[in-house]
Amino acid sequence: MAVIESIPNVSEGRRGDVIERLAASIRGTPGVRLLDYSSDPSHNRSVFTLAGDAAPLKVAIEALFEAAVASIDLRVHQGEHPRLGAVDVVPFVPIEGVTMETCVALAAEVGRSIAERFGIPVFLYEEAASHPGRRNLEDIRRGEFEGLAAKMSSPGWAPDFGPAAPHPSAGASVIGARMPLIAYNINLNTDRLDVARKIAAAVRHSTGGLRFVKAMGVKVDERNLAQVSMNLTNYQKTPIFRVFEMVKREAARYGVSILESEVVGLVPSAALIPAAEYYLQLERFGPEQILENKLKADS
Amino acid sequence: MAVIESIPNVSEGRRGDVIERLAASIRGTPGVRLLDYSSDPSHNRSVFTLAGDAAPLKVAIEALFEAAVASIDLRVHQGEHPRLGAVDVVPFVPIEGVTMETCVALAAEVGRSIAERFGIPVFLYEEAASHPGRRNLEDIRRGEFEGLAAKMSSPGWAPDFGPAAPHPSAGASVIGARMPLIAYNINLNTDRLDVARKIAAAVRHSTGGLRFVKAMGVKVDERNLAQVSMNLTNYQKTPIFRVFEMVKREAARYGVSILESEVVGLVPSAALIPAAEYYLQLERFGPEQILENKLKADS
Repeated sequence: MAVIESIPNVSEGRRGDVIERLAASIRGTPGVRLLDYSSDPSHNRSVFTLAGDAAPLKVAIEALFEAAVASIDLRVHQGEHPRLGAVDVVPFVPIEGVTMETCVALAAEVGRSIAERFGIPVFLYEEAASHPGRRNLEDIRRGEFEGLAAKMSSPGWAPDFGPAAPHPSAGASVIGARMPLIAYNINLNTDRLDVARKIAAAVRHSTGGLRFVKAMGVKVDERNLAQVSMNLTNYQKTPIFRVFEMVKREAARYGVSILESEVVGLVPSAALIPAAEYYLQLERFGPEQILENKLKADS
Repeated sequence: MAVIESIPNVSEGRRGDVIERLAASIRGTPGVRLLDYSSDPSHNRSVFTLAGDAAPLKVAIEALFEAAVASIDLRVHQGEHPRLGAVDVVPFVPIEGVTMETCVALAAEVGRSIAERFGIPVFLYEEAASHPGRRNLEDIRRGEFEGLAAKMSSPGWAPDFGPAAPHPSAGASVIGARMPLIAYNINLNTDRLDVARKIAAAVRHSTGGLRFVKAMGVKVDERNLAQVSMNLTNYQKTPIFRVFEMVKREAARYGVSILESEVVGLVPSAALIPAAEYYLQLERFGPEQILENKLKADS
């Protein structure tokens, strides 16, 4: 069975009864598992993590939209996190036995259906984007709900599906497909924030570094140390070990060493195995040699 | 569902029709998957790899004994590999959602049943051994089939189950439970066999090295290089990365570096993830953060 993950971000992080109704809408779908959900009141936003095959996932996301559209009104929504709509962003992520192409097709299918059922304009993003200017979520979301009507009436911002103007209360939704995102931090053996910032600037894509790394230098006050805080957006093309080694090398330039690293949240084993291969100098090794894969393949 | 692996070694590696009947006896058992089998004519021995839950595995192993006892006569069996019986060795290995204790209990249950059904004496070994002198397979097998009657009539060699003398044609069987065994080789950047032998002596348990390492130095003629060829018998207690680092350090003593390493056959992902953790200096990381585990736990 294929496993696809979806991580819808919904613009409600304060009203507990609404959040529970949203969770219930997902849980009520056979073939879908709600793995996790968490809410941030200051962002006024909740993030749900669900997994399943394509068809049941589509049903669950539609149920989530139904519950969200009934309870959330962007005209009275306030929060720190930028947002365009009630169900703000819906990525589909290939996990197991499924290709990126399948997730791209699923994003388009769900997008078309949401637009038809709810009259909500849908923008496709990342791997599902209809053109390069729509790959980045930040570009689509710029202007937020408050600026959406004006943005959609300007050239180049017709939605991929649905009406040419925002839904009055639910705004618009951004739906797409992407690789699993890994939240990866490296703690330095120093409290110097300037060093963490210089390293972040060296390794991240936006300022000349590795293609699939987003990074910033931050201070971890309670431990009095500086941290390179990163998102790895494609662990296949920019593997963790290469990021680690580059940070280590840049840190050495300032006489600083790595204290430790940490993965925040979930990580596919396929993102860690290559680090074992790299450091153990493993040759002639393939995924079919991993016992769990062999057991799955034969079942 | 629990997954236990069993790797029965059978004293037949030449007669193709017999080997196919043995494989068919395993394949015919519902709930058991035959993952692999291979035969060595000079050893005159076949190794089968099967997986399943405890109850169906017991059925499959009994079916294998039935087929083997009907076709194999140790009185006329010749081959390079030491052996005591028709079904020579049967280890049970905990893979997923199952403890070593369950595998030990399964070994005893299968041993008792085989002794009763076929009149074959059974010795329990490794984790299932009834006393320390029976942990090592080599100690039980010393003297082979030809010396078995004499050995069994000497003090201390009564079987754990079954008659006090060998089965006339099927000899005796050694059944037990053990951790997954990893065949791990490190190729050196030299053709000096003496260096590989010195490193092997340094890292292996028997001559003062790491507790769960068996090692020898060999020459890989077709590539003209020296190799430290190892079996890692408990990857949890003696992890791969520690073996790799020790070999690297010992090699440096002779001015030699590591060219590459290789895993022969299957390896559980749980044996490779700790190498990623070690080299990436990952802290506060647990198996519940691995996405595949999360998906399994919630299913």
